[in-house]
Amino acid sequence: MKLKVFTTIVACMLFATSPAGAKTLVERLGYPADTKLLIVHADDLGVAHSVNAASIKGLESGLVSSASIMIPCSWLPEIAAYARSHPEADLGLHLTLTSEWGLYRWGPVLGKELVPSLLDRDGYLYLTESEAAAHINPKEAEAEIRAQIARARALGIQPTHLDSHMGTLYQNQALFETLFRVAHDNKLVIRVSKEWFASAPFLTSLMGPDDVAVNTIISIEPSVTADGWAKFYADAVKNIQPGLTEMIVHLAYDDEEMKGVTFAHPDWGSAWRQRDFQFVTSDAFRKLLQDNNVKLTTWREVGKALKKTGS
Amino acid sequence: MKLKVFTTIVACMLFATSPAGAKTLVERLGYPADTKLLIVHADDLGVAHSVNAASIKGLESGLVSSASIMIPCSWLPEIAAYARSHPEADLGLHLTLTSEWGLYRWGPVLGKELVPSLLDRDGYLYLTESEAAAHINPKEAEAEIRAQIARARALGIQPTHLDSHMGTLYQNQALFETLFRVAHDNKLVIRVSKEWFASAPFLTSLMGPDDVAVNTIISIEPSVTADGWAKFYADAVKNIQPGLTEMIVHLAYDDEEMKGVTFAHPDWGSAWRQRDFQFVTSDAFRKLLQDNNVKLTTWREVGKALKKTGS
Repeated sequence: MKLKVFTTIVACMLFATSPAGAKTLVERLGYPADTKLLIVHADDLGVAHSVNAASIKGLESGLVSSASIMIPCSWLPEIAAYARSHPEADLGLHLTLTSEWGLYRWGPVLGKELVPSLLDRDGYLYLTESEAAAHINPKEAEAEIRAQIARARALGIQPTHLDSHMGTLYQNQALFETLFRVAHDNKLVIRVSKEWFASAPFLTSLMGPDDVAVNTIISIEPSVTADGWAKFYADAVKNIQPGLTEMIVHLAYDDEEMKGVTFAHPDWGSAWRQRDFQFVTSDAFRKLLQDNNVKLTTWREVGKALKKTGS
Repeated sequence: MKLKVFTTIVACMLFATSPAGAKTLVERLGYPADTKLLIVHADDLGVAHSVNAASIKGLESGLVSSASIMIPCSWLPEIAAYARSHPEADLGLHLTLTSEWGLYRWGPVLGKELVPSLLDRDGYLYLTESEAAAHINPKEAEAEIRAQIARARALGIQPTHLDSHMGTLYQNQALFETLFRVAHDNKLVIRVSKEWFASAPFLTSLMGPDDVAVNTIISIEPSVTADGWAKFYADAVKNIQPGLTEMIVHLAYDDEEMKGVTFAHPDWGSAWRQRDFQFVTSDAFRKLLQDNNVKLTTWREVGKALKKTGS
């Protein structure tokens, strides 16, 4: 019976997203069907002043089209002030159930008494997405992410989309279901990639007719060395296919604060983030997008096309 | 009746701290009675990486003898790691019931469900000590500061003393009583100054025979301009009297993080804190102490002399 439900839902989803004769997402966004659309998305806003400052520069360069915010972090008020004064900025929520840096940490928005399964023995959110997923009670995760959305709105942030910091909410079916339920209730689009369908076949059954999955997510790995940066992005952009692609970037400066945050953690570290900042705000990146006929879009535009009123 | 109790307790306290023939605190610390003892104390550790880094430099210069930590802040793990690797450092708790910066904020250790009176409408601790004191239910303050002490100990910090960030716990009698009750239960010394007795006469009734009040607290005001810095400290050190004095300093670097923390707030701002750092780690300050026969001590030494086993 499970299989039957699954097959039916996949068929519905495929029909809903690109039935013969119906408009594709790209067409609903107002572009010819063969257009290559890209959301260049900065993650982790709110985590540090350095991240906020570099990400705002990225957004204002015009080459970063979207970003998402970590609500439990102490630098939230800084980015909330930016959101209030820049209502056109495409800012979503980077729903946060982990606290990954050794010397700089945070807890949930809700008190530990309400969400004990979210906390490690030091009273912070878990260090890794796998530890978090292994311990989290999905009901508590749901309460917490609803509280994160409520706090964002109370601070004047009108989120255009949802995604999951470190992919914690993408770790298992129960957490995915939680994310979809909350997103649907709030009429918000979610970051989902078609690449995930093979390993998470249940995912397609969660998607409604107005959900969307991007073709692929481009995200440079910590293993790419400084001299391989330009080539990684050049290859990735050349390979972008018609439809919607998302590129996730992690912007910060290699300054004292960010060195402290990422202490003893060169992967996703401060130098790595500054390299990402320098590349995606460069003329070389602008030219790369132009030369490959890649057009930038935002989650707000996608949400509007899908009639997500939360966006 | 109140007056009678007050008179009796003042008499007891005076007798307990310096009865005729009994040892004064300075003598209990092993010094001649006319010794000028000074604790140079850095406040606000844990609030920012910049504060942690500058305060550790201050402690390691030998010219800053003590410091206290803000437990609810995200940089706590960094300073907790330092405390674990430097058990000789004189680190207390800067009990925190306010969150004073506009763009960078924090909440309590306990969940908002347990301590609602501690939170402003944005879900953070109040911006000012007066707002905090006006709204706080002392029972909730007590639960929160007990939780801050518990979290400190769980992270391997063995606090040598207690004081109150922005003096929130010094704002009224009920909060003072809370602080003394918690300090006594934990056998920890508290920052109290004899200068406060006139405006808070109830204070003397809270002090037990093993509590101590410093003669005076030296703390440079935000109004002192850069060219007045050396003169302020020179005058202050020259005026130090025999007995115990505390000098409160606020150390940080004038870097991007700290400029962000103190944005639009030049009072107690990043440049002001860097000036404080530069002066109190300077040879000029070392010479000033030597020339005036001022000896540095710590809250740990004071606690030991008073047989405070928590220290």
